[in-house]
Amino acid sequence: MSLLTIGTVAFDTIETPFGRAERVVGGACTYISWAASYYTNNINLVSIVGDDFPDDEIKALEARGVDMSGLEIVEGKKSFFWEGKYHENMNQRDTIATDLNVLADFDPDLPESFRDSKYIMLGNLTPEIQIKVLDQLKNPKLVVMDTMNFWMDIAMDSLKKAISRVDVLTINDEEARQLSGEYSLVNAAAKIHEMGPAYLIIKKGEHGALLFHQGNIFSAPALPLARVNDPTGAGDSFAGGFIGHLAKTDDISFENMKRAIIMGSVTASFCVEEFSIGKLKSLNDDDIKRRVEAFKALVSFDL
Amino acid sequence: MSLLTIGTVAFDTIETPFGRAERVVGGACTYISWAASYYTNNINLVSIVGDDFPDDEIKALEARGVDMSGLEIVEGKKSFFWEGKYHENMNQRDTIATDLNVLADFDPDLPESFRDSKYIMLGNLTPEIQIKVLDQLKNPKLVVMDTMNFWMDIAMDSLKKAISRVDVLTINDEEARQLSGEYSLVNAAAKIHEMGPAYLIIKKGEHGALLFHQGNIFSAPALPLARVNDPTGAGDSFAGGFIGHLAKTDDISFENMKRAIIMGSVTASFCVEEFSIGKLKSLNDDDIKRRVEAFKALVSFDL
Repeated sequence: MSLLTIGTVAFDTIETPFGRAERVVGGACTYISWAASYYTNNINLVSIVGDDFPDDEIKALEARGVDMSGLEIVEGKKSFFWEGKYHENMNQRDTIATDLNVLADFDPDLPESFRDSKYIMLGNLTPEIQIKVLDQLKNPKLVVMDTMNFWMDIAMDSLKKAISRVDVLTINDEEARQLSGEYSLVNAAAKIHEMGPAYLIIKKGEHGALLFHQGNIFSAPALPLARVNDPTGAGDSFAGGFIGHLAKTDDISFENMKRAIIMGSVTASFCVEEFSIGKLKSLNDDDIKRRVEAFKALVSFDL
Repeated sequence: MSLLTIGTVAFDTIETPFGRAERVVGGACTYISWAASYYTNNINLVSIVGDDFPDDEIKALEARGVDMSGLEIVEGKKSFFWEGKYHENMNQRDTIATDLNVLADFDPDLPESFRDSKYIMLGNLTPEIQIKVLDQLKNPKLVVMDTMNFWMDIAMDSLKKAISRVDVLTINDEEARQLSGEYSLVNAAAKIHEMGPAYLIIKKGEHGALLFHQGNIFSAPALPLARVNDPTGAGDSFAGGFIGHLAKTDDISFENMKRAIIMGSVTASFCVEEFSIGKLKSLNDDDIKRRVEAFKALVSFDL
């Protein structure tokens, strides 16, 4: 089934304890689309870049089955840029610079052929833009939305409006606590369900992810890795693998959502091994199959 | 098979965001022994208390099959006392007071009948005492040791001596990083294996636990709970359930270690629901069976 991905396509400068990468390709929508492309080749990308964004990166996504006709290229302007530095523990990072550039004017007008997309992945953006996209969709089957504490701090009202219209919300544990005002994630999930989303995914980075739905909970591990070079885009790769699997299988049962969470975790586990989208661009089906087996072994017990 | 438990039997004053408990029963060995008592009734407890420790608490453990002849009761002195206050997020706590009292003179001399115990659970104590206990054992089958960053800070040399003699080490993720000097838990585990323990368990609190052995990794979840009243003793309850299951089944294969980790997680999930050992004292086999099923459902997927 058709998958619509929306979010930033951008440049990042990233420093981690393991190295530094200058002005490399980044952006939520980039990670989401690359990740999803290992599961489906019916992807409609909506984003905005300046004339500085490399044409071969656009072509590389096209070659993966991503329809790039929804990528607005603004002549004479620069792409969105983010610079961040990770702490020793890699779970925390400081933002060094955020240059909105073309993103300040992002007002997505979906190509007509995109408007009947069935699976929708709203990457982290201002809630107003996420709502604008929802307003242009005809009859989506499943809407997944990623967001972050930044919008909770400065735009809670419009964020809640956006959240009220989505089926699956993906946030981290601290954000779930902030959004709900509840410390227990079980209670946080109950409150967030009341806000709209029938499914809540709590991303916990190196500690895995939790899926909440109608009182059921699924806990997916993260694969312990010998080296994590760059956590940037891990959440987006997770989201891309998750919705990519759902769009491919067109099955939104809880059982299949669990499989999708594992595929998201598998995809994210590759993402963090190299800077930028380095690893995500070079996977093949065997890599993914082997890592799925590693995840199965990781949690299997017989009791 | 016989299980030897050693550690503190003590009083705690505990403050969490959900309440305060004054001078309630605590201590690593108390939690370990209560937890293990749901799996085996062949337990030899070694500890020390003052004459202020309630006799009915000693009798309650005896009624669970715990041989209390290794509990030294020092007349005219007080039991070990710890006071702690948990932060809002419950993952961190401040120590308000530590009164060693009788613990300052603890020099365990194991009853003769205890010396051929097969399963050994060394609760958190000074490494010197842990070593003294090991020196008195005839032919243990499996030695599990719990410790903490405190001993890494002030007694690393003797801690490493103790660690070199154990089969299973249980520490948290930050402690694994401190002990090994490695950030990646995979690399930390490899270094810690080289120090002696063939098995490493990394306790991650609300994020579950990891078991490392010969390049294999098992990831156990923690059960998301609606209310955690008091995290005190969670790690000790985990250890008690873990070694209790092993002593009961007398099978130290990796597959059975994984089951033991789940039993430890199950037991810890009860512990934190009430202050002190309130919940741990009131379990029955059905409670445990139901929670085992909850753990199975929590991680099951079909891919």
